[in-house]
Amino acid sequence: MKKIVTLAFLGLAAASLAQQKTISGFSSASAAREYEHEQQFDQSLSAKRVGENIKQLSAVPHHLGSPGGKAVAEAILAKFKSYGLDASIETYQVLFPTPKTRMLEMTGPTKYTAVLKEMPVPEDATSDQPGQLPTYNAWSADGDVTGELVFVNYGLPDDYDQLKKMGVDVKGKIVIAKYGRSWRGIKPKVAYEHGAIGCIIYSDPKDDGYVQGDVYPKGAYKNEYGVQRGSVMDMVIYPGDPLTPGEGATKNAKRLDRLSAPTILKIPVLPISYHDAQPLLAALDGQVAPADWRGGLPITYHIGPGKSTVHLKLEFNWDMVPCYDVIAKIKGSKYPDQWVIRGNHHDAWVNGASDPISGQSAMLEEAKAMGDLLKNGWKPKRTIMYCAWDGEEPSLIGSTEFAEAHAKELQQKAVVYINSDGNGRGFLGAGGSHALENFVTEIEKDVTDPETQVSLFERNKSRQAVNAASAKSRKEAIDQQHIRLGALGSGSDYTAFLQHLGIPTLDMEFGGEDGGGDYHSIFDSYDDYVRFKDGTFVYGRTLASVMGKATLRMADADVLPFDFRSLYSTLDRYSKELTDLSNQMRESTAIENQLIKSNRFAQAYDPQDKLPQPEAKSEVPNIDFAPLKAALDSLKKSTDKLSIAWEQAAQNGKDQDKLNKMLYRAEQQLLSEQGLPRRPWFKHSIYAPGFYTGYGVKTLPGIREAIEERNWNEAQQQITLASQSITKLAGYLSAY
Amino acid sequence: MKKIVTLAFLGLAAASLAQQKTISGFSSASAAREYEHEQQFDQSLSAKRVGENIKQLSAVPHHLGSPGGKAVAEAILAKFKSYGLDASIETYQVLFPTPKTRMLEMTGPTKYTAVLKEMPVPEDATSDQPGQLPTYNAWSADGDVTGELVFVNYGLPDDYDQLKKMGVDVKGKIVIAKYGRSWRGIKPKVAYEHGAIGCIIYSDPKDDGYVQGDVYPKGAYKNEYGVQRGSVMDMVIYPGDPLTPGEGATKNAKRLDRLSAPTILKIPVLPISYHDAQPLLAALDGQVAPADWRGGLPITYHIGPGKSTVHLKLEFNWDMVPCYDVIAKIKGSKYPDQWVIRGNHHDAWVNGASDPISGQSAMLEEAKAMGDLLKNGWKPKRTIMYCAWDGEEPSLIGSTEFAEAHAKELQQKAVVYINSDGNGRGFLGAGGSHALENFVTEIEKDVTDPETQVSLFERNKSRQAVNAASAKSRKEAIDQQHIRLGALGSGSDYTAFLQHLGIPTLDMEFGGEDGGGDYHSIFDSYDDYVRFKDGTFVYGRTLASVMGKATLRMADADVLPFDFRSLYSTLDRYSKELTDLSNQMRESTAIENQLIKSNRFAQAYDPQDKLPQPEAKSEVPNIDFAPLKAALDSLKKSTDKLSIAWEQAAQNGKDQDKLNKMLYRAEQQLLSEQGLPRRPWFKHSIYAPGFYTGYGVKTLPGIREAIEERNWNEAQQQITLASQSITKLAGYLSAY
Repeated sequence: MKKIVTLAFLGLAAASLAQQKTISGFSSASAAREYEHEQQFDQSLSAKRVGENIKQLSAVPHHLGSPGGKAVAEAILAKFKSYGLDASIETYQVLFPTPKTRMLEMTGPTKYTAVLKEMPVPEDATSDQPGQLPTYNAWSADGDVTGELVFVNYGLPDDYDQLKKMGVDVKGKIVIAKYGRSWRGIKPKVAYEHGAIGCIIYSDPKDDGYVQGDVYPKGAYKNEYGVQRGSVMDMVIYPGDPLTPGEGATKNAKRLDRLSAPTILKIPVLPISYHDAQPLLAALDGQVAPADWRGGLPITYHIGPGKSTVHLKLEFNWDMVPCYDVIAKIKGSKYPDQWVIRGNHHDAWVNGASDPISGQSAMLEEAKAMGDLLKNGWKPKRTIMYCAWDGEEPSLIGSTEFAEAHAKELQQKAVVYINSDGNGRGFLGAGGSHALENFVTEIEKDVTDPETQVSLFERNKSRQAVNAASAKSRKEAIDQQHIRLGALGSGSDYTAFLQHLGIPTLDMEFGGEDGGGDYHSIFDSYDDYVRFKDGTFVYGRTLASVMGKATLRMADADVLPFDFRSLYSTLDRYSKELTDLSNQMRESTAIENQLIKSNRFAQAYDPQDKLPQPEAKSEVPNIDFAPLKAALDSLKKSTDKLSIAWEQAAQNGKDQDKLNKMLYRAEQQLLSEQGLPRRPWFKHSIYAPGFYTGYGVKTLPGIREAIEERNWNEAQQQITLASQSITKLAGYLSAY
Repeated sequence: MKKIVTLAFLGLAAASLAQQKTISGFSSASAAREYEHEQQFDQSLSAKRVGENIKQLSAVPHHLGSPGGKAVAEAILAKFKSYGLDASIETYQVLFPTPKTRMLEMTGPTKYTAVLKEMPVPEDATSDQPGQLPTYNAWSADGDVTGELVFVNYGLPDDYDQLKKMGVDVKGKIVIAKYGRSWRGIKPKVAYEHGAIGCIIYSDPKDDGYVQGDVYPKGAYKNEYGVQRGSVMDMVIYPGDPLTPGEGATKNAKRLDRLSAPTILKIPVLPISYHDAQPLLAALDGQVAPADWRGGLPITYHIGPGKSTVHLKLEFNWDMVPCYDVIAKIKGSKYPDQWVIRGNHHDAWVNGASDPISGQSAMLEEAKAMGDLLKNGWKPKRTIMYCAWDGEEPSLIGSTEFAEAHAKELQQKAVVYINSDGNGRGFLGAGGSHALENFVTEIEKDVTDPETQVSLFERNKSRQAVNAASAKSRKEAIDQQHIRLGALGSGSDYTAFLQHLGIPTLDMEFGGEDGGGDYHSIFDSYDDYVRFKDGTFVYGRTLASVMGKATLRMADADVLPFDFRSLYSTLDRYSKELTDLSNQMRESTAIENQLIKSNRFAQAYDPQDKLPQPEAKSEVPNIDFAPLKAALDSLKKSTDKLSIAWEQAAQNGKDQDKLNKMLYRAEQQLLSEQGLPRRPWFKHSIYAPGFYTGYGVKTLPGIREAIEERNWNEAQQQITLASQSITKLAGYLSAY
């Protein structure tokens, strides 16, 4: 007995030695306590229970406004309560279209009527349930159009530039675009901008089907009938309920008329399978598509237009539905008015075992472990909130309406918003506010990867090093001491918090070893998840550990772990990118115009192709980046100075309250009152979803998009505005 | 009338003003005469007759040893004679295998018997003729093998490295490889080196089929039954008759025993269509192929091995056949013992309208125009020879046996060998000895592109500028005053002349606007050629003009237009490439070994894939390039000095005979007596077909391949040998 006790004691000693590690923002004493809480927290987490929750919450279809959706919200509410948390449902009234009529047929040169239906398979128990939403794109216009078909690759602005080079115009035509390379809503928007009267989006097997791997149910990839549902709202104008921009969609909120809502599409849009796309594409004539446009179907891809015509008819039920956000709270003991907010949506397009239930179940596991900590007597310094959002799929509705309804309070109180969505297997991906790079680095070093038993930090480093293209970048990967956070665009519930309200944000999930074609289909099911994603749920448990640590550390830090030096160096990099971009554009425009003038294109082209010469573009003026550089210089000075004050406060404990309050509201200084050009809802000067990428981020978006759009005056104006925001932040940080 | 005469006179005046241009190697007076001859020459050329010759000579199948082949040789002989040239047939006796048994079947998991037959189409008049060679690879071994199937991508050494990384071994297996990325003969050779017992090669629709464009007969690309025939002899050891390496295959030549001939394959090899490949590939299991291995068939590409087994049975008639080289001569008036040799083969795999008859017909047109010049009283200073080679397709037999049989005389007398093969539509491609860069540049500036009416030089420049990836390389393309000749590897009849004998060589053809899948199939027909290649034969006429100018200028130059400064600058570039290559390999090996040692691969890989860790490679030592640099320094000095002497001789006419004799034999100084390691037939120190690329050139091959093979001692030895050759050339040039 005694020997065993001694060993156990030694074990503890070793463990507490290991715990001598510091945590930024914690004194030694509080770091030791924090590690103890985190250890208890981790011990509460159960991979098995994560799996059980995934199974339970993905048991039936549960989209916004459905009986299944209401049941899921209520189940989550009950779970929060059972963990000992103070929970309730906040309901908004929102517009949500569902299909009434869906018809797509080829009318010439041959007849084909599209199936427009995913086929259930016996290997997937939930694939033939009632209550599934049909395959459609929410926020398509009602419409009944017939026209010649044109294949537009991914349907992005560059693709239309290419079509112009080939002398093809889509005006009055119906376009067919591949899914991928952008958020789907960009495709019909750009089609409409170019005069198309309808838009079909399909999953090409090269991007999402048999070219990627064996198809479902043999493998994980999209089979011939699989269809990706999804929103095509013009969310880069504003997300959330289209009728209530900028305010919560409460019962009596002032609402726009639907037909005047700017984010609802103006043409009919329908997603189809590659089974339905193949006859349409095979019938196209006209020029052969450029090599990098061709997909994986066993046909020669042509562009059209020509004899191939299609008829597309769509009608929707434009219903008002309730949107159920489930909110649970743990009140802060020292700073109840500082909120650490953790969120993940609960609505799905169909069963959504992966998207969003895998993330939701990890979050529930965190909430349960917090409840266990509470039962053991722990109380967080700051208030912790768990938010299970509804209506994310149609357009981030639940989170956006919540953020808009509580905007002022959130800007006063929200310390951070920590988001997840679906979760998979593999490597931790992390994006967010760059002042949190060191914070996330420390967590990645403290959490062990369940497959390889090295830290998440080392595993990510190994992946980067192994995949790096050159010896130089391999060395750099090995040498790096900090992770680099991705910049956030859109595509999940952080958008309103970060980009509308300026609240520091993190977004994390595991992935990279869980490819498949289930996204937004009937096959995003428990059966699929177990076979092809995180089948033992260990990454669900690990996500809970990562997010739990992030939440606990934010809630209990003596000094909030923001380090704005990382923000400075990131902004400095972005600024250099923009300088390089404008210089490159200047050079390439000059030489291209010279080639056009000297007839080089006509000489290079095959005369039999009868291609038009490209048109000369406006020469790129010298853009004055000096204001931006000056703003960055002042930011550098103030962040360097602040980091000294921050260290002192962390060590001597003085003025922590004042410092904390300043720190978490600093990011709001980067908001501009007028917002981005043509989309004032987006107020953050540093991060925005791209106007023509959708989910994909544009950093320093006002400047970058103006340059990309060759709007030189606006670029100069936006340099002034971004510089003002950065200078404002520098002044704010210096004032401490 | 008078007015018209005046205009005509002015036209002539303008033309003769234009003719004030100089030609390197010609005095002003001889340049004026030369331009006159070239103008007469061009006036003799007829696109229509080129087309008629293509139609006539591709009317029936005419492979080596066939009745059609003999008839084509005799028709060419008759044409040469009708043009007034002194022509005869030189016959060799050579080995040539044709199929006796061809059988390929899948024996498991399901049954499939390969069709192994191209299907005639009514749109192609010659596609169903008797006398077609079946689809096969010449020089395959006889064999009857059954084994598991493994997909090996393009079947090149890198692909086997990748298989090793995936833990897949082909020992005792039958491999299936895609056509492309190398000469086809490399694939079975590398398969054999890795222990495979059989090799199937197929045309994937991604590289050669519907992914490229509409298939025959709707479009030009390979249809599902199309098969590429071709030789798989190990020609990088030596080309030509496998039984008579290094000497002419005359009737009584000493011959190797067939089974000991090192260039004949040791395993059975068969080419198949994608119709036949699809069931085999679809049945494969095992790992999914890496993304860049996947082709255009509508399946998920797997690697195998597994349940999928095939049975391959091949037997050949190993016959001795006559090989008919048709040789026509125009005796030189001043230097009858200096030979300007022009060649193009006449044998085809089937009808060969494009390969080789389009080139052959251009050459006949040149010969006819030369005959017309002769009739007008012109006599070339040097002897001109037209060579229509037989047996190029099986392994460059006709040209190689001729070069071997006449080796000594050729090294004494051959000034240059000017080669063509098939000809298409578009841009002039030119490769050859780098001392001829200025020579070819002048010709490209003097010949007008028939489609765009700018010079070939300007059209090529426009293409380069338009296609260049960066503004910088666009500018460089626009600014360049000289073309850059490609370095020659193998794949056509220049090989023995250049790489075995060191005779200055050029190889030219038009292409780039004539894609298709007819190569070595029954669809390389007149009907296909007219629809999809040079349908109006204007590029045939233009090739005759280019080649005619090259031949005339070489035959009539006062001083032969070799400029070795271009050779120096090219060699200097190659030398830098090799230094960079070895430095990059050193760096990447070091970091890769470090990653292996620190377990980074295991951490980066998906543990479920159970991939082996890569093996550490030998560290790259510091290779001493100083001898090469010293040799290049001395070459620079001697070429700079020679260029002054050359200019003086061209101007004052002194010592031209001595200079000329020195100039055309200079390239022979670059031969090494021992030849390349493991393939002594290849004696050129600068150019060789790659041991693992086949047609693709390796420059400074001894050094480059030793580095690529990580044979560091050999690399150092080869630096010594190449440096000796270059120093020898420098001394030779200085000695003038």
